[in-house]
Amino acid sequence: MQPSTSKQTILVLHGPNLNMLGKREPELYGRTTLTEVNTRLQTQAAELGVAVKCVQSNHEGELVDTIQKAMTRCRAVIINPGAYTHTSVAIRDALLLLDVPIIEVHLSNIYKREPFRHRSMIADVATGQIAGLGVNGYYLALQAIVKLLDN
Amino acid sequence: MQPSTSKQTILVLHGPNLNMLGKREPELYGRTTLTEVNTRLQTQAAELGVAVKCVQSNHEGELVDTIQKAMTRCRAVIINPGAYTHTSVAIRDALLLLDVPIIEVHLSNIYKREPFRHRSMIADVATGQIAGLGVNGYYLALQAIVKLLDN
Amino acid sequence: MQPSTSKQTILVLHGPNLNMLGKREPELYGRTTLTEVNTRLQTQAAELGVAVKCVQSNHEGELVDTIQKAMTRCRAVIINPGAYTHTSVAIRDALLLLDVPIIEVHLSNIYKREPFRHRSMIADVATGQIAGLGVNGYYLALQAIVKLLDN
Amino acid sequence: MQPSTSKQTILVLHGPNLNMLGKREPELYGRTTLTEVNTRLQTQAAELGVAVKCVQSNHEGELVDTIQKAMTRCRAVIINPGAYTHTSVAIRDALLLLDVPIIEVHLSNIYKREPFRHRSMIADVATGQIAGLGVNGYYLALQAIVKLLDN
Amino acid sequence: MQPSTSKQTILVLHGPNLNMLGKREPELYGRTTLTEVNTRLQTQAAELGVAVKCVQSNHEGELVDTIQKAMTRCRAVIINPGAYTHTSVAIRDALLLLDVPIIEVHLSNIYKREPFRHRSMIADVATGQIAGLGVNGYYLALQAIVKLLDN
Amino acid sequence: MQPSTSKQTILVLHGPNLNMLGKREPELYGRTTLTEVNTRLQTQAAELGVAVKCVQSNHEGELVDTIQKAMTRCRAVIINPGAYTHTSVAIRDALLLLDVPIIEVHLSNIYKREPFRHRSMIADVATGQIAGLGVNGYYLALQAIVKLLDN
Amino acid sequence: MQPSTSKQTILVLHGPNLNMLGKREPELYGRTTLTEVNTRLQTQAAELGVAVKCVQSNHEGELVDTIQKAMTRCRAVIINPGAYTHTSVAIRDALLLLDVPIIEVHLSNIYKREPFRHRSMIADVATGQIAGLGVNGYYLALQAIVKLLDN
Amino acid sequence: MQPSTSKQTILVLHGPNLNMLGKREPELYGRTTLTEVNTRLQTQAAELGVAVKCVQSNHEGELVDTIQKAMTRCRAVIINPGAYTHTSVAIRDALLLLDVPIIEVHLSNIYKREPFRHRSMIADVATGQIAGLGVNGYYLALQAIVKLLDN
Amino acid sequence: MQPSTSKQTILVLHGPNLNMLGKREPELYGRTTLTEVNTRLQTQAAELGVAVKCVQSNHEGELVDTIQKAMTRCRAVIINPGAYTHTSVAIRDALLLLDVPIIEVHLSNIYKREPFRHRSMIADVATGQIAGLGVNGYYLALQAIVKLLDN
Amino acid sequence: MQPSTSKQTILVLHGPNLNMLGKREPELYGRTTLTEVNTRLQTQAAELGVAVKCVQSNHEGELVDTIQKAMTRCRAVIINPGAYTHTSVAIRDALLLLDVPIIEVHLSNIYKREPFRHRSMIADVATGQIAGLGVNGYYLALQAIVKLLDN
Amino acid sequence: MQPSTSKQTILVLHGPNLNMLGKREPELYGRTTLTEVNTRLQTQAAELGVAVKCVQSNHEGELVDTIQKAMTRCRAVIINPGAYTHTSVAIRDALLLLDVPIIEVHLSNIYKREPFRHRSMIADVATGQIAGLGVNGYYLALQAIVKLLDN
Amino acid sequence: MQPSTSKQTILVLHGPNLNMLGKREPELYGRTTLTEVNTRLQTQAAELGVAVKCVQSNHEGELVDTIQKAMTRCRAVIINPGAYTHTSVAIRDALLLLDVPIIEVHLSNIYKREPFRHRSMIADVATGQIAGLGVNGYYLALQAIVKLLDN
Repeated sequence: MQPSTSKQTILVLHGPNLNMLGKREPELYGRTTLTEVNTRLQTQAAELGVAVKCVQSNHEGELVDTIQKAMTRCRAVIINPGAYTHTSVAIRDALLLLDVPIIEVHLSNIYKREPFRHRSMIADVATGQIAGLGVNGYYLALQAIVKLLDN
Repeated sequence: MQPSTSKQTILVLHGPNLNMLGKREPELYGRTTLTEVNTRLQTQAAELGVAVKCVQSNHEGELVDTIQKAMTRCRAVIINPGAYTHTSVAIRDALLLLDVPIIEVHLSNIYKREPFRHRSMIADVATGQIAGLGVNGYYLALQAIVKLLDN
Repeated sequence: MQPSTSKQTILVLHGPNLNMLGKREPELYGRTTLTEVNTRLQTQAAELGVAVKCVQSNHEGELVDTIQKAMTRCRAVIINPGAYTHTSVAIRDALLLLDVPIIEVHLSNIYKREPFRHRSMIADVATGQIAGLGVNGYYLALQAIVKLLDN
Repeated sequence: MQPSTSKQTILVLHGPNLNMLGKREPELYGRTTLTEVNTRLQTQAAELGVAVKCVQSNHEGELVDTIQKAMTRCRAVIINPGAYTHTSVAIRDALLLLDVPIIEVHLSNIYKREPFRHRSMIADVATGQIAGLGVNGYYLALQAIVKLLDN
Repeated sequence: MQPSTSKQTILVLHGPNLNMLGKREPELYGRTTLTEVNTRLQTQAAELGVAVKCVQSNHEGELVDTIQKAMTRCRAVIINPGAYTHTSVAIRDALLLLDVPIIEVHLSNIYKREPFRHRSMIADVATGQIAGLGVNGYYLALQAIVKLLDN
Repeated sequence: MQPSTSKQTILVLHGPNLNMLGKREPELYGRTTLTEVNTRLQTQAAELGVAVKCVQSNHEGELVDTIQKAMTRCRAVIINPGAYTHTSVAIRDALLLLDVPIIEVHLSNIYKREPFRHRSMIADVATGQIAGLGVNGYYLALQAIVKLLDN
Repeated sequence: MQPSTSKQTILVLHGPNLNMLGKREPELYGRTTLTEVNTRLQTQAAELGVAVKCVQSNHEGELVDTIQKAMTRCRAVIINPGAYTHTSVAIRDALLLLDVPIIEVHLSNIYKREPFRHRSMIADVATGQIAGLGVNGYYLALQAIVKLLDN
Repeated sequence: MQPSTSKQTILVLHGPNLNMLGKREPELYGRTTLTEVNTRLQTQAAELGVAVKCVQSNHEGELVDTIQKAMTRCRAVIINPGAYTHTSVAIRDALLLLDVPIIEVHLSNIYKREPFRHRSMIADVATGQIAGLGVNGYYLALQAIVKLLDN
Repeated sequence: MQPSTSKQTILVLHGPNLNMLGKREPELYGRTTLTEVNTRLQTQAAELGVAVKCVQSNHEGELVDTIQKAMTRCRAVIINPGAYTHTSVAIRDALLLLDVPIIEVHLSNIYKREPFRHRSMIADVATGQIAGLGVNGYYLALQAIVKLLDN
Repeated sequence: MQPSTSKQTILVLHGPNLNMLGKREPELYGRTTLTEVNTRLQTQAAELGVAVKCVQSNHEGELVDTIQKAMTRCRAVIINPGAYTHTSVAIRDALLLLDVPIIEVHLSNIYKREPFRHRSMIADVATGQIAGLGVNGYYLALQAIVKLLDN
Repeated sequence: MQPSTSKQTILVLHGPNLNMLGKREPELYGRTTLTEVNTRLQTQAAELGVAVKCVQSNHEGELVDTIQKAMTRCRAVIINPGAYTHTSVAIRDALLLLDVPIIEVHLSNIYKREPFRHRSMIADVATGQIAGLGVNGYYLALQAIVKLLDN
Repeated sequence: MQPSTSKQTILVLHGPNLNMLGKREPELYGRTTLTEVNTRLQTQAAELGVAVKCVQSNHEGELVDTIQKAMTRCRAVIINPGAYTHTSVAIRDALLLLDVPIIEVHLSNIYKREPFRHRSMIADVATGQIAGLGVNGYYLALQAIVKLLDN
């Protein structure tokens, strides 16, 4: 069962096409599925004494809606904006509404890919970034968030 | 005492001005000194069953020398190239000589700073990046390296 | 009660994150809520002898849908495309389908903000722009629309 | 009645505002409606011994959803991404999940229009392009797809 | 008779070629002359309980002189910098000397014209902009100024 | 025997290096030779009740000469300008002399190749483009031309 | 004595620093003075049956004033905008008010000089240009104007 | 009969598509044919006591050949490089071999046309330019050349 | 009393808005007025055995006029072109008429300000620059000029 | 007598204007003529046990023709593309047809010349480059080719 | 004897190749040697009641080391970063560690030289700049520093 | 034994990471080690009657030091600046101090690699370049230098 999105919760947002994780292009993204990632994040969160709420959407508007709802209920955000990293001012603006730590995660090393993937619309409104470390990036981000919340 | 740079060792490289860590601009870089970072990395490495060798230099050429020496003796590299991130083709070329995992660490969120700091000459020859998470970035990088070596 | 979207109606479109108006970043956007803006626009419209229909969405596709529906039923459009101002060719294309006056409104002075906010994908398909005058921009736009319809 | 989206099916995707085809700007897009295009494609497909499934959406996320579903069930894709041609990394990423022939269609000659329409985010992940030939472009694309599937 | 430029006065500045308003290119700028605009602004100002002083010049230096004189005597500025919008750092610097509300007005929609007209040297030192609404832009600007002064 | 270049004729122009078609780089261009393409176009034309005249040259000037001659004698042009696509203002200017339908064909998907191949000097003076579909592109172009001439 | 600026008159405008013609940098501009140029133009005009009025100013505003006055009284303009060629939108806008032939003259070959001199703000609102032919450029321009007026 | 290309001769070079002069696009280039231009230049040359040799080619290489031959036999060059203006380094290099006056002529005002026509590869190796004055540009150029040769 | 502008005199030119020095934005420009600066320069000049003539204008044309007059009467120029630094080709051209030492002075560090202030149209025609040292920059410039004249 | 173009032959291609070598601009290109260069290359080739075939053309199309013919008969190419270095995609494409070593030679140091000469369309399809060493560059290239063929 | 680097000391840093001052390129840099400059600075400093410490290095790392050591012991810095002006983020970062006045000196007018010399990585972290005044620039900088320290 | 660096000596400079030559990435740089290259250069030099001095360093500053020392003792320089090719103004400035022939050597074809490797800071201060010919490039450069010294 999902933890309720209380003020104790950390929102984990997965952008477009991440629901296909582990199903295609494993040489780029690995073989772990998104369900497995979310399950592992739940377990790790429990160990660290926090709760996570995981949401995936292919819709920019839904990601904006979800971030807005997090505004009053969430302690931090881990976001892998996927393709919207490079194009979405709307998600950027939604994140600007929050005043909690935000970590941007990318599974692949975006600097080894097409030039348009080198620019992030999110990077300068996030606290920090973790990229190129596969799904392990999510787990490190959760650790980092807990560390930031403890300070 | 420093561990010998054996093939079991992970090289941790700190670029220019990182020897001043904790002594100036704490709002940007925090109050932990580089010595404290290195000590903590040694401890953490011991716990994880690996060794680290930490080197800092303000000299691009020395950083190149150090990477070249690591070529036959190191299992991985954690590098915070500091100012040379944005300008050094020489360090990039030295890293290209290695075939071990490389993680690029930045203490501050470089995307919140001057535009010339947004471009890294190193990013696409590294395995991944961790930025904006302060000295914690080093500790997460060490964890990530161990994970990568285990796979 | 909302007026029906008859051919006498002026469509007022609010883009992503404008539903949070008055709730966050008041130094940038003021303290008036979107509901208050819409109510005031209704009142003002009644005084001017026209009707307005106000729609907000965080979804680019919904904004496109709404504009398409306005095609046969609306006399004019006031649009604050929010973040989509800078990225949406789809909204631009939808507006191109109409042949009624269109006024683009921005609450803040977009020229004092990040460079990517200086470019509008909408500006050259609108009749005119009002920016930097807060929620008053909407009320001036309504006046201007009525003036344009009278000519 | 629509053919079921079996592995024998060719997905025809129409992006934003294409539902208005034939209703506005006939000098640019002609007078044929999208329903007429789809009907003709069904007929032509039947003659060629294949099935087509036609989907139109103004929502980027829905287009991504549709492409993802096509992943296991479709033999090829004909896509006119409309306005999303120029901005959508998300649709590009979804198309990258497929390993079937993809033909990008544009009704108008995009090189005679605004400069931002000259860049396609889709072009280099498609097999080929047909542009500027009006609705005939769809029928030629269907022929081309069948030819590609036969080889 | 012109009102004296007291601290109660709003300065209305018209840049180069605006003295030809209504005399040429009516399809772009309309048929109202500058004298008619100024007269109407006087009337409207009287109704709103403020005074306006209207100045036109083709000389960049004179516009700078006029703004400097306004420094101690004016409550607000409405400026249509005309061609100097795109080139004058001197007018920008003069406006920077003031600490009163400034509204930039353009009669035509500058985004429908040559690319060099899309950049304003004034926009980010003004409070806001009104563009593309013809001479009505001046009257709306006056209303907006009074509103800003009332707050 | 070639059909005479009467006003009933469609000119098919092949630019530089297309005479090597099928002889080198088959992974990029396929194994069909230019002679086979031209023969097939003759056959297809006969079936469609039109005539084609096929010309290949490595010389920009000869291509210009040929287009000029077509001015009074040709009903349409299919042109694969090869390398001159990206550099020839002269061919563009020659095409501007004609007032017949023009279809630009590229065998390979030019958007998957070097950046300088993404710009066509011809695209905006042609009616439309077909790219990335191999020699089939020529046959589709012929169909499309006939369709355009019928309308 | 200067001819009156009647509708029969051709306005010859010399921009900033042209009053120094013949006095400095003769290797660039020759040794003829502006007075000599104007005298010769008067003579030549008389021979051609037209009148010229010659004005020089270092002040952008004065050049704008002069062009505006020419609006109702002049048949054509020869303008060497000097340094304002590259920066003045105001002079461009003033010239746009006229509907008479305009020839832009430059004494030196501006393409052999600094890159910022290669761009003219005037070129696309003039009928034509003559550059690099020294003071002879003015005399050729006068001939060309008379030719244009005769057609 | 053409005058022999002696050292007394002025070479007049017409680039690609200029052989079509007067036959197409008269609104852009006028109705005079190239033969008429050349005849008139012969007549005018005779009056001025010089000879002209007129050559037109659609081939860049032939234009280079012709310029090379002019090297030892010509006193000056009038060149309208047509489309090669914007692309030909080869013609530029050939002109660099000469040490005689060179005037570049364009019939239309290239600054009113596509941006790629604004750059000339020839301009800074010519003595001067005449543009936008139709075929009269050639006659003025001949006058100017004679003037330059007299000095 | 001002010294006469003899050939012994050094011209000190202050550009637009510098007449407001000391009256506004003291954090940027200090509290000394322009009159105080000029008086101090007179005193310092007397001590150094030279004379200075100080001129301020908001008018580009007047600055050009003043430089032209200096041509025959001045030994050197100290110029703070203010806003015209970044835009005036006319002042640049006027300075090019002189063959005396020229020092460009800026009160503030222009490299800490908006990007458009980083480019100077004057820098490469001046002998040298002094920036960011407040009004002291003028006094150092005078010293430097005297030193240059002595060599 | 020229050696026949057998598979043992090395093709030496000289681009436009190289036939003028030694006849003009000796300070840039030296005084040796192209005939002398070719004779020396023949002698040197004989000594090295290879044959060379030397071709010069001012025509891009002829250079393409020559390279195509070399496809089946040549062991290597030495090419000085002259002006076509910077503009010819057609020559690049022709070279791409070959799978033999290619050395690009430039007589002058192209990096000391105009910026447009710094870009070579050929460089990345050649094996290597020799520039700035005058005609000696050809002789070194021949040595290098023989060395490459020996490996 | 050098003064000790006490907190009373002003650090004078000379970058790469400045040790060759006076030995080469005197037309660009003059004939004074660096030793003479340093001696004169010592003398001038003594007169002004301050001490200077002069350091030259060709090594970026050594310059960084020297600036770091100055952090606790120096009252101000005069720096001529030479070639590192245009490339060194490391020196910039080291200077950012200090909170003392910094003056950047250049002997030559960098704006008269290659474009890459127009950009300084140091300018916006310095207090001010003196350029183009030869070695006198150092002496003026010392005066300016003393003035800044007195305020 | 190394020859002494007398005025008869040719300096051969190897930049960063060239000490690893032959040890890594043989597909890019070949299998010959730097020691072997230097030995071969010594032998070849002896045969040609000259001496070479070979120096390698990873330190930009050391390369500058070495070039400065060569100033009075060396007849020519062969330099492979490695990574510093693309970034070092300091090495460029040091080379500018010399007035001897300089040949820039690159082992790989830099135009086939990352875009930042296409720009050389050294190219326009060298006499010529040899690239893409592996270690043979050094031997050809030595030949070329001897040839240049003989002329």
